Amino acid sequence: MRLAELSERSGVPVGTIKYYLREGLLPPGRRISATQAEYEEAHVRRLALIRALVQVGRVPVATAREVIAAVDDESLSTTFRVGAAMWALPQPPDPDPQDPHIVRATALVESLLDELGWTHAREIGALSPSYRALISSLATLPRVGYEFPPEQLTPYGRAVEEIATVDLDHLDRYDDTTEKAEIVVGAAVLFEPVLLALRRLAQEELTTRRYGL
Amino acid sequence: MRLAELSERSGVPVGTIKYYLREGLLPPGRRISATQAEYEEAHVRRLALIRALVQVGRVPVATAREVIAAVDDESLSTTFRVGAAMWALPQPPDPDPQDPHIVRATALVESLLDELGWTHAREIGALSPSYRALISSLATLPRVGYEFPPEQLTPYGRAVEEIATVDLDHLDRYDDTTEKAEIVVGAAVLFEPVLLALRRLAQEELTTRRYGL
Repeated sequence: MRLAELSERSGVPVGTIKYYLREGLLPPGRRISATQAEYEEAHVRRLALIRALVQVGRVPVATAREVIAAVDDESLSTTFRVGAAMWALPQPPDPDPQDPHIVRATALVESLLDELGWTHAREIGALSPSYRALISSLATLPRVGYEFPPEQLTPYGRAVEEIATVDLDHLDRYDDTTEKAEIVVGAAVLFEPVLLALRRLAQEELTTRRYGL
Repeated sequence: MRLAELSERSGVPVGTIKYYLREGLLPPGRRISATQAEYEEAHVRRLALIRALVQVGRVPVATAREVIAAVDDESLSTTFRVGAAMWALPQPPDPDPQDPHIVRATALVESLLDELGWTHAREIGALSPSYRALISSLATLPRVGYEFPPEQLTPYGRAVEEIATVDLDHLDRYDDTTEKAEIVVGAAVLFEPVLLALRRLAQEELTTRRYGL
């Protein structure tokens, strides 16, 4: 398809597409003349990812470029490609290993992962930004004076494990590793607000059931 | 306890406590002389909530004041008190009912709630900011060009229902309605980053299990 059709199919204005091309977020089309290029379905998909990252996730363009480079890195296995793309997303600051709240949260996360049987996550450990983010977010609770029972985390872990299973089953329908990586990263940005809204709604539903109106 | 002890117990500097008192976020202590007041355990707990909202959740002071007013409103039932406090939290902009993506997302949410049997949430409907946030966040996916199978939402709903059950079971240990409301709102702000980090970690774990390293 030509640029005009790509714009119509994706809903992204021509000027914005040209900007994404210049910034190296969107790969160039196949040149068919001095002034025209031909674009594929993969460009439509890529534009969806770029919009998810830049417009919805407010990811800076330089960061989006790194995420996309990981998505496109054919030298990596599926796990590493998806992982590298996710890890390139903006992450919270690293936890300070000297902080006693961080020390306690780290021990808590280690025993949680053991209990959940998440052996890979346990092995990768602090290499993973998600692992570090979990520690930082847990350390915040006692830091501001909130108590919480650590055993509450295990059912949380089981619940997100179910969600991740559904996500991966959906992913299995796609053969192409690039497409898999695109979907994981896009869904991470787009589905997180869905999950939080749904959780709040579940809370309202169950509060009403338990305590009446 | 005196102000100095309240500061030490809560980890909040005296000057900051005075600021929260002036702003009406923290109720005044019981006056015992022209210059001294006596504070209770409830002040320690309230400071934890204020820090969760203002320092972690970056909730503006005026909004935090509204949240706290709802937490303290003894004229309301437990459900309404918790609900009013949650609804006073900053919310995404309201969905535009003219937008075709919003129309489709609304139908999707309605059938999801029917399928989940969330009759209260279905009845309250668009009165609830969580309901509106769910519609807006779902409408974003097709708007940026992401397809997703609606049936994927049902297991998401079941998973957050389990999480909400754990949360409410924890809440049942507290008798006082003010304390219940404080915990729900504080946990909403503090546990959301935990949940998202845990979900990403589950995704890494299951990706590695399924696709190998």
